[in-house]
Amino acid sequence: MNYKIDNLQYCNWSRKIFEINRSAGLDAVHVTIVYHEDFDELQLEIKKWEKIFNDNSDLIFPGKNFKDIDKANKENKTAIFFGFQNCSPIEDDIKLVETVHQLGCRFMQLTYNNQSLLATGCYEKVDSGVTNFGREVIREMNRVGLVVDMSHSAEKSTLDAIELSDKPIAITHANPSFWHAAKRNKSSDLLKILSDSGGMLGLSLYPHHLKNNSNCTLESFCEMIAKTAEIMDVTKIGIGSDLCLDHPDTVVEWMRNGSWSKSKNYGEGSKNNPGFPKQPDWFLDARGFSNIEKGLKEVGFSDAETHGILGNNWYNFYKSI
Amino acid sequence: MNYKIDNLQYCNWSRKIFEINRSAGLDAVHVTIVYHEDFDELQLEIKKWEKIFNDNSDLIFPGKNFKDIDKANKENKTAIFFGFQNCSPIEDDIKLVETVHQLGCRFMQLTYNNQSLLATGCYEKVDSGVTNFGREVIREMNRVGLVVDMSHSAEKSTLDAIELSDKPIAITHANPSFWHAAKRNKSSDLLKILSDSGGMLGLSLYPHHLKNNSNCTLESFCEMIAKTAEIMDVTKIGIGSDLCLDHPDTVVEWMRNGSWSKSKNYGEGSKNNPGFPKQPDWFLDARGFSNIEKGLKEVGFSDAETHGILGNNWYNFYKSI
Repeated sequence: MNYKIDNLQYCNWSRKIFEINRSAGLDAVHVTIVYHEDFDELQLEIKKWEKIFNDNSDLIFPGKNFKDIDKANKENKTAIFFGFQNCSPIEDDIKLVETVHQLGCRFMQLTYNNQSLLATGCYEKVDSGVTNFGREVIREMNRVGLVVDMSHSAEKSTLDAIELSDKPIAITHANPSFWHAAKRNKSSDLLKILSDSGGMLGLSLYPHHLKNNSNCTLESFCEMIAKTAEIMDVTKIGIGSDLCLDHPDTVVEWMRNGSWSKSKNYGEGSKNNPGFPKQPDWFLDARGFSNIEKGLKEVGFSDAETHGILGNNWYNFYKSI
Repeated sequence: MNYKIDNLQYCNWSRKIFEINRSAGLDAVHVTIVYHEDFDELQLEIKKWEKIFNDNSDLIFPGKNFKDIDKANKENKTAIFFGFQNCSPIEDDIKLVETVHQLGCRFMQLTYNNQSLLATGCYEKVDSGVTNFGREVIREMNRVGLVVDMSHSAEKSTLDAIELSDKPIAITHANPSFWHAAKRNKSSDLLKILSDSGGMLGLSLYPHHLKNNSNCTLESFCEMIAKTAEIMDVTKIGIGSDLCLDHPDTVVEWMRNGSWSKSKNYGEGSKNNPGFPKQPDWFLDARGFSNIEKGLKEVGFSDAETHGILGNNWYNFYKSI
């Protein structure tokens, strides 16, 4: 059985996008449901999702564990797994870790770009690693079965999380910095330690994470994967596209600024390029998975390796947690 | 004109305590109104204070600036200045800095013992200093007139705050570590930099911050002040007693643990000594100010220096901000 899994999307959800994901053959998608929201705001977001599931029950359903990926595959649907890109929904309360898991959350980043109560984000000047509260939260996430996601975290914090977590962690959406030295991308040393610990990397298709950004070629992307597979076990590599389809640019502004600054912060963008970047033409949406499939074979990956990267590796990761 | 100011109390407020503070001659007290509360919880706390002010209007009134200290002195009342021991009431929202100032807050700690969104507390393993959000908040606190208080913060974070703040900061309740090497006490280097920057130190009477704890002698305390005045300008030294009268021990447990841990944290206490410690017999409550007055004169302070330490220095600090 082969699965296709996109382990990070944050789209302006609509029936159109669920149809695209189905026509791309996606059995599962890990979707970001909140960034900087607190617990009350999370509950409002979950109510919105109840309606979305209800209105699109022929295309999607809420995923709780790996068995739902099998179910989706059989029923030609897409299982939707919830995740948070910041830890703000648990506020300062260890008990909320179990609560958000009960509400369906399966991945939580310990930080977005800035310092959180748990760890340091990749946009801070100094990285102090995982905090006192962070250590408690990782232990609790392990206990309830919530995956630690360090995609937007700084390096020492990520190394701490790998060491502290009894279960493998994930970097759901980032690329190696040897290929494109963005703040959000990860060092080869870190990727090796991640892989050795059983953790997964989801490769990102977000243009700011790509060599030559929107002009990145499919060949360059797949060659990067081949080189990454020399650093990491190929079974620890997947896709986390970071697709942000159909959002107005006010959304990326909010993602970057939250409510923490009076001046505008452009994050990975710039004053002249503040909005969502244009996707490369070979990955305009999830249907680009078929292009990546061809590209992976052209750079020499076997069928098994290719299907691993396109979904089976994430499936096995879900199965292990 | 001489003033008496206690620049930190966190008592289980009652008419009895306000009467004691009046009989001690206190013209002003900076009171902690919240520790780990969020913005909604802060508003509830402020409602409680509205009733307290109403019920005890012959003894206390809300202080907004230094003129209220003069008013209190004339009317034989105590001006109550609000402060927070953690930054949780501003949540992750820069706009709430101005809002909490409008609600009466005049001092805010950037951290309690743990990492906050703004800086690092003195109980963390690594101190990364003031964060991105912290820099924005300090600028905004300067603008609206809210004093940065680093009593519970780690050293690099405190040095960062002194450097980043355009206005003098305060350590409202702590002692020098040369005298008693508690995690909460401060190094001589830090105290000198604080003083040189125009910042104030409020000396604490909380037994865990005192040499020999509850058995600390008045002589030892006053000799410590004399030595501190060799490091700091004597006009930058005041009292911030940290009196926590009439609370049940569940309160100190909550102060230390908030909701961040499933296991119990004893903070400055220990498993065998988990509760509030016993005050030294010469400072059972604010009436101990008169003992400190005698003690300061005995170790050689002049009248002007003594009155400075007992209140005039804090008065001048309030006047400057």
